[in-house]
Amino acid sequence: MENYDNILKNMNLKFRNIDNNKLILAIVKSTENLVLMTAFMNEESLKKTLETGYMHYYSTSRQKLWKKGEESGNIQKVLNIYRDCDGDALLFEVEQTGWACHEGYMSCFHNKIQKDGSYKSFGTKFD
Amino acid sequence: MENYDNILKNMNLKFRNIDNNKLILAIVKSTENLVLMTAFMNEESLKKTLETGYMHYYSTSRQKLWKKGEESGNIQKVLNIYRDCDGDALLFEVEQTGWACHEGYMSCFHNKIQKDGSYKSFGTKFD
Repeated sequence: MENYDNILKNMNLKFRNIDNNKLILAIVKSTENLVLMTAFMNEESLKKTLETGYMHYYSTSRQKLWKKGEESGNIQKVLNIYRDCDGDALLFEVEQTGWACHEGYMSCFHNKIQKDGSYKSFGTKFD
Repeated sequence: MENYDNILKNMNLKFRNIDNNKLILAIVKSTENLVLMTAFMNEESLKKTLETGYMHYYSTSRQKLWKKGEESGNIQKVLNIYRDCDGDALLFEVEQTGWACHEGYMSCFHNKIQKDGSYKSFGTKFD
């Protein structure tokens, strides 16, 4: 059985105080190098991600752990993990089932900012 | 002259309380879709980025605005900006001069996490 406390220790992460939680940033990309989304992780959600091989996050609004796709079915299988130089962010390469955005787009970054600051959706809407 | 307060208002962002500052997440990718880095922006650094066309961040450790590359010369010219669905993160597509990581790698995410949680650098070290 893996010791996830030791694994986390070896990752040497810098948890930040974000909305009164100790969190790191998770940035998620597809195998085609599309940035799918970003969300936060606390220790528990990171351990759950490592243990299960599927992305789990921490919701600051609902103040709880959530598995990506637990309701929609749009789960994310972890393929590779990269740590940034200061250790407050991890980049996950995932195999995305369906699409990542709850608004029905492949990526949550589907709003292109216009010159006046307003934004317009682009790309295919799957749902 | 542009009204950056209005532009910011139109962007409808959700600044989070991060290490006692009101910040959004900036994720930065190259034109080749390589995730280069992530850092934070407060209102001032976002306005400066929009005004100059070059990436400016907010340093939580130094508690001040910084222009990426101001010392190293490794500046980042903004090409496109994408807002995520909940408005707490912006994805910037940039033209990177030199490399993004202060450790001399193109991307700050140059540490691949191993099975035991330790990490190993990969890729070309430019500096």
